[in-house]
This record gives sequence, C-alpha cells and structure tokens, in this order.
Amino acid sequence: MAVGNIAVPDTIYPIDGITLSATAAGVRYKDRNDLVIIKIADSATTAVVTTKNTFCAAPVRVLRTHFDQASPRYLVINTGNANAGTGADGLRRATDICTELASKAGIDVRSVLPFSTGVIGEPLNSEAIITGLDHALTQLKSDNWLAAADGIRTTDTIPKVASQKLDIAADSTAQSGSYHITGISKGSGMIRPNMATMLGFVATDANIAADLLPKMLSAINERSFNRITVDGDTSTNDCCVLIATGTASTELIDSTDHPHYQPLFDALSAVFMRLAQLIVRDGEGATKFMTVKVTGGKTTQECCDVAYAVAHSPLVKTAFFASDANWGRILAAVGYAGIDDLDTEQVNVSLNEVLICQNGMVAPSYTEAAGKEVMSLPEITIHIELARGEASDTVYTCDLSYDYVKINADYRS
Amino acid sequence: MAVGNIAVPDTIYPIDGITLSATAAGVRYKDRNDLVIIKIADSATTAVVTTKNTFCAAPVRVLRTHFDQASPRYLVINTGNANAGTGADGLRRATDICTELASKAGIDVRSVLPFSTGVIGEPLNSEAIITGLDHALTQLKSDNWLAAADGIRTTDTIPKVASQKLDIAADSTAQSGSYHITGISKGSGMIRPNMATMLGFVATDANIAADLLPKMLSAINERSFNRITVDGDTSTNDCCVLIATGTASTELIDSTDHPHYQPLFDALSAVFMRLAQLIVRDGEGATKFMTVKVTGGKTTQECCDVAYAVAHSPLVKTAFFASDANWGRILAAVGYAGIDDLDTEQVNVSLNEVLICQNGMVAPSYTEAAGKEVMSLPEITIHIELARGEASDTVYTCDLSYDYVKINADYRS
Repeated sequence: MAVGNIAVPDTIYPIDGITLSATAAGVRYKDRNDLVIIKIADSATTAVVTTKNTFCAAPVRVLRTHFDQASPRYLVINTGNANAGTGADGLRRATDICTELASKAGIDVRSVLPFSTGVIGEPLNSEAIITGLDHALTQLKSDNWLAAADGIRTTDTIPKVASQKLDIAADSTAQSGSYHITGISKGSGMIRPNMATMLGFVATDANIAADLLPKMLSAINERSFNRITVDGDTSTNDCCVLIATGTASTELIDSTDHPHYQPLFDALSAVFMRLAQLIVRDGEGATKFMTVKVTGGKTTQECCDVAYAVAHSPLVKTAFFASDANWGRILAAVGYAGIDDLDTEQVNVSLNEVLICQNGMVAPSYTEAAGKEVMSLPEITIHIELARGEASDTVYTCDLSYDYVKINADYRS
Repeated sequence: MAVGNIAVPDTIYPIDGITLSATAAGVRYKDRNDLVIIKIADSATTAVVTTKNTFCAAPVRVLRTHFDQASPRYLVINTGNANAGTGADGLRRATDICTELASKAGIDVRSVLPFSTGVIGEPLNSEAIITGLDHALTQLKSDNWLAAADGIRTTDTIPKVASQKLDIAADSTAQSGSYHITGISKGSGMIRPNMATMLGFVATDANIAADLLPKMLSAINERSFNRITVDGDTSTNDCCVLIATGTASTELIDSTDHPHYQPLFDALSAVFMRLAQLIVRDGEGATKFMTVKVTGGKTTQECCDVAYAVAHSPLVKTAFFASDANWGRILAAVGYAGIDDLDTEQVNVSLNEVLICQNGMVAPSYTEAAGKEVMSLPEITIHIELARGEASDTVYTCDLSYDYVKINADYRS
C-alpha cells in the first residue's frame, strides 16, 4: 500500500538518444519482466554513483571497473537476484553477461554496465539472462520508460517514473534550450542513504560537459536518494545513473555559471526528489509518508544525525503507524542522536502546523485532539527546531507497520 | 512471549540491610502495583549509572543532584509514567515525592533517589504516589524482591530476578566471606545501551569500599546492560543501581587486589548478565534470543559496531523471526557497519555450529536444510569472524515480529 500521490506522470517524455526494453528472462520467476536494457547514444555523457556498503555486489564491482575505462553504451539490469555475496563466480557471471551483450552489439565489453537486485547470496542465473539478450535487444524503444520502471521492480508495488520538460529562453550569452528529463527508480526495503536497495536511472537530452555531470549527480543525489530511509539498512547493490545525451542542443553546458545550468540543476533535482520520495511512499508496509525536517542546528551534520535518529526509531515509526501522537518518543530519539551539549529546554517539535513540544516539554497550546487529528493524516512533517544555529537538513521516511514485518519475513518464501 | 530460560530462581536470597515493598498507588492504572520502595541500611555504599540521553527525565536529573550530595537511603520507583519531557513541573513533582518520603522517614531529602518509567511527556500523578507512601512504607520486607521485580514492570511480561550465593574460604590475607547477591530489572522495549528503558537494582551484603563500587558497576554494566538491544532506542529514564550493604563481613574489599574482589566481581557480573539477558528474552514481541558475537576485529569498538549493525538491522531481525537463513542480510549489515578497509573476502559467518558464509560467500559445506534447522531454534549465536585482528565483542538481541509492532502501536491505548 503506497502513500499519497504515487501517480505515473500523464506524459512521459522520451529522451532522444535513449532506448529501453523490458523482457522476461526467467531469472527467478517465469513470465515476469526481469531483464531491462537501456541503450545510450554515442553522443552521451554518463555519471554513476554506487553503494558505500563494503560488501558491494559483483555487478557493482564489475560496473566500477568498466566505468573507469570506457563510456557506457548499454546498461543491463536484472531483478530476482542481487548477485551479492557470490565471490569469484558472481564476478564471472556479471562479466559474462556484459561480454555477451557487447559481442551482440559489436562494442567494447567495458561499455556495458551490469546492475542486479534481489536476493543476496545465491548464484545468479546468468545463463537465463544471456539467453534472453537477443529478444531483449529487439525490443529497444524510446517510449519504454514505464515498461522499464515496471521491469526493475522487486517488492515495489508501483512503477516509479518522473518526467519533466524544461524550456529556457535565449539570452545574450546562450541559445535557447528545450530540454527533457525522464527517470525511473526502484526500491522499497533496505532503503538508506549511501544508498538504498535502490536503482535510479535518469536521462536528459541536455548537452552537459563530462566533467560537470558527475558533480551535478553527486550534489543532487546527496539531497534526494541520500536523504531517504525506510529501515536503515544499506544495500549491497545501490546504483544511480545520470545520462546526458546531448541531442537537444549544441549549447554545451560546461560550468555552473552557464545560464542553463541552474534551471537544469533544479529540474533534475525535482526529478530525483520525486523518484526518491516515490521509494519512501512505496516503503515496505508504509501507511504514512513522513518528512523529518530539522532546523536551528549548528551544523548540517548534526541536523542530519537528529533527523535520522528520529527517522530510524522503531518506536517513533510504530507510533506513526498507530496514529498515536506519542511525541515523547520523538524527544527521546532527539536526545540520543549524539549532540552532547544540546539544551533540551530550547527544543520545539511540530507535526505539520501543530506545535506539540515547546521548550522541551508539552506545548501549552497542545491538545490530544489536535495531535490525533494531525496523526491521522497520511503525510506528516515532523519539524524539530534545535534553536542553536542556522543549519538545517531534511530526511524522508515512512512508518513501521505489521506489513513491513510480513513482507520481510516472507520475502524468500 | 519471552524466549528460553526465563525462570525466577528457586531461591531468592534476601540481602541483609535491604527491605522492599511493592504497592498500588494508582499512578496510571488502578489495582496494579506501580510503586516500589527500596530501603537501604545506613552501613551501605551505593553506585549509580544513568542514561546518556540528553533528554533525560526529571527523576534522573533529581537523582543525579541528590546522589552527588548524600548517601542514598531510599529508592522510590514508579511505573505508568516516565516523568520525562515535563520541564520544571516534572522536576518539582519528582522532588515533592522525595521530600515527602524523607519527611516520613526522618532523613535528608537528598538521601532519596526517584525513578520513573512509562509514558513520556505527560504530567506525573505525584499526588497519587505521595498518598501511597504511608502504606508503602508499612510493607517494607527483606523477602519482597520478587514482588518488587513484579512492581517495576511496564510492558515486561515476566518479573526479572537473579540471585546468587558466594562462599570464599579464608586465606592468609583475608577472612572467609559468605556473600549474597540479588537483583531485579525491568525493560522490554526502547532497549539499547547507554542505556535501555531499563531499570536495574542489584544489592550484595559484601563490604565494598565506596571508591571501588562505582568502578565495579561501570565495568560490569559495560559488559551486560550496555550490550543488549531490542530496538535501538535509548530511553530517557535508564538507571542502574548497585548497593553493597556491608553487613555480611567486616572484611573490607577496598582494591582490585583484595582476594575477594575477583570472585565477587565475577558473581556480580553473572547476576547483571542474567538480568540484562532477561530483558532481551522478554524483548517486545521476541520469539528468538540472538547472541551476536564478533571476533577477529582490529579493535573492540569495530567489533561492537559490527555487532550492533547486525543486531539493529530490521531486515536481519525479521529474517530471524521468519526462521529464514537469509544470511545475505547479515553480510549487508556487516558491510555498512563502517569498517572502510574491511576485506570482505576474509569474513566468515556461522549460526551456532553451522558455517553459512566462508570468505565472504556461501560456504561450500552449507545446505539450506542445515540453515533451516538452526534457524528454527529459539536461541541462535551469530558468529562473525572478521579475520583482521584479535579483538572481539558480543551483543545480545532478539528478533522483530508482528507483536513488536502491535505492542508499540497499542502502548498508549
């Protein structure tokens, strides 16, 4: 049960220079699309960020090696098996898939990047994927974004797509630009920054310089995919890819001073934020979408620490599931977030517009009725004011329900 | 549903110099024992450790002030309300209770230490407690340890008691000693070191020097109550008290070199460990008792970090609830525990005697049948060998079940 606005956009803009396919290779289940291929035009530049988990999966290792040596032309993604904790055999299988695809496409193997998601620690059925490649390659089309979003799902209950068009008028320093941005993501459990069991693929037809693109991805990712949490677990397989095909314009965006840079950055950020928040809205068992906003900190880091302490607290998350304004649990989480010199008598906490805690204790204006009303909403912003500085940060999470336990207890069965 | 051996000891030794009572004051519910008083002989020395949560509750603040200035003679403990997040009013109420008790007992108010546990952020019904003091004081008896253990319960499903007798023969440097140790604890949710929603009260009749006792408490606490976790939440109210009444012997144990020191330390450690593990065995919704043992680390800290990453992972905990040997989730948690230079190809993981992961991947000897068999047991040791040093550490936890969500979603209703 996903929370709030989870709709697929009315218009999903194809990105000139990108074609995709989603087909059923039988990796784990029969007759379920589990193999997605994304073909990237030669003109494109690509940036990638990958998981910080030291037990990173075989495809992530292969991807890092390939990406360091060549420009990506094909992304090959399977669900059903993460090919993680699989040792040398896993590396061989991930490489085999790339080799076969490269051979069929007539390109260097290093221009193929592999991605896997699913169960950890079991041998990947790479034979099924390799067998499925021929059919998959015949299905590549520019309007397959939704099919691809559907094809990369695991426990996701909804396909996750965001798409946007951006028109920039010409001025004395640059031509006009008419850009499109489309992206897909997957993930609903094992979600935590750095990063999640999260895959994200975003493409634009803007013409962005190869040295600028990774900086944009890093900055945007930090504010979106690295600020979501479902259960605090960091996956072995997370990857996020940003592709700029450059087909929309000859105007090269090569610095942060370029007049197209900021509008594009903002539009890309909006797409990334939507894709990230869709993951939380579809969090395993989620019934509520919670924004944890911490202001008035001395540093962004301490705001982030407080936000994550609250967002990860099982007691806070179960209270939200129960629509119980048990704000003491929020205070307790703030208290153990590691700010040793926090003056708790300065701390205020609001739920949406309802001030529940003022100066470290129940607000005089607070009523249980107001608490009950706000807690019954599906979307709640927990605003924690620390009153000790100017820094702020925001994290997005969901509640902890029976269904989270059910989904994760049953996942392999 | 508590896990494994949770029995109350056949013999609960009274401690000469300690009397206790448990009565119903009506703090939150009627006709439920919610007020426990522990009276301590003048001869005793007492050590205390308290929560590291910066939002510490009013009674903890009052306790710290009192304890710094006088020797405790009465401990007054209520359930039903934590008196936390209650500001100046909460401090006044905690002090009022101490003042009234001190007046009735004819002692300095600073010799009374208050403890509260229950809901956070609501005003404490101190009037009910004060009204109940007279009756409570008439009920003080030396054999009320079990009644006291019962009286400090909140969501605990069982009373938690440990008791032990220790005989030490005389030698050329010291008299013989015949000592008794008895303790009680409470806690089943919001359990995490530093510390838990945990209260622990342990007394011995040994004669331990006032400067040695806090060192013993600190060392023993670090290995017991500070190594348990149910949900990773650290409470605002945790306290642990160690009392040495000194009535058993004139032999003063005044240094770690004293021949009675080590046997007493070991016996006290066993009582603390039992009381700590009982909290995990009674963890909210627990169906399995898990020992997470990490060996081969470079430092104790990194072993502890890895153990807690595994013990806190909702994905690991739900897999154990489901008796699913989904060891990939254990590897993933090890991988995000923060050891940047971990060589994952050296890591081994066993469940009891079953080696599941060898050199970072599935062990050749492992079978799903063996995994299924061991996962069906109620007590499982997860042994993680990092193979990079000599350090080790151990943490105790339980699984995450439907009932954890149910208990914490319903707690206030």
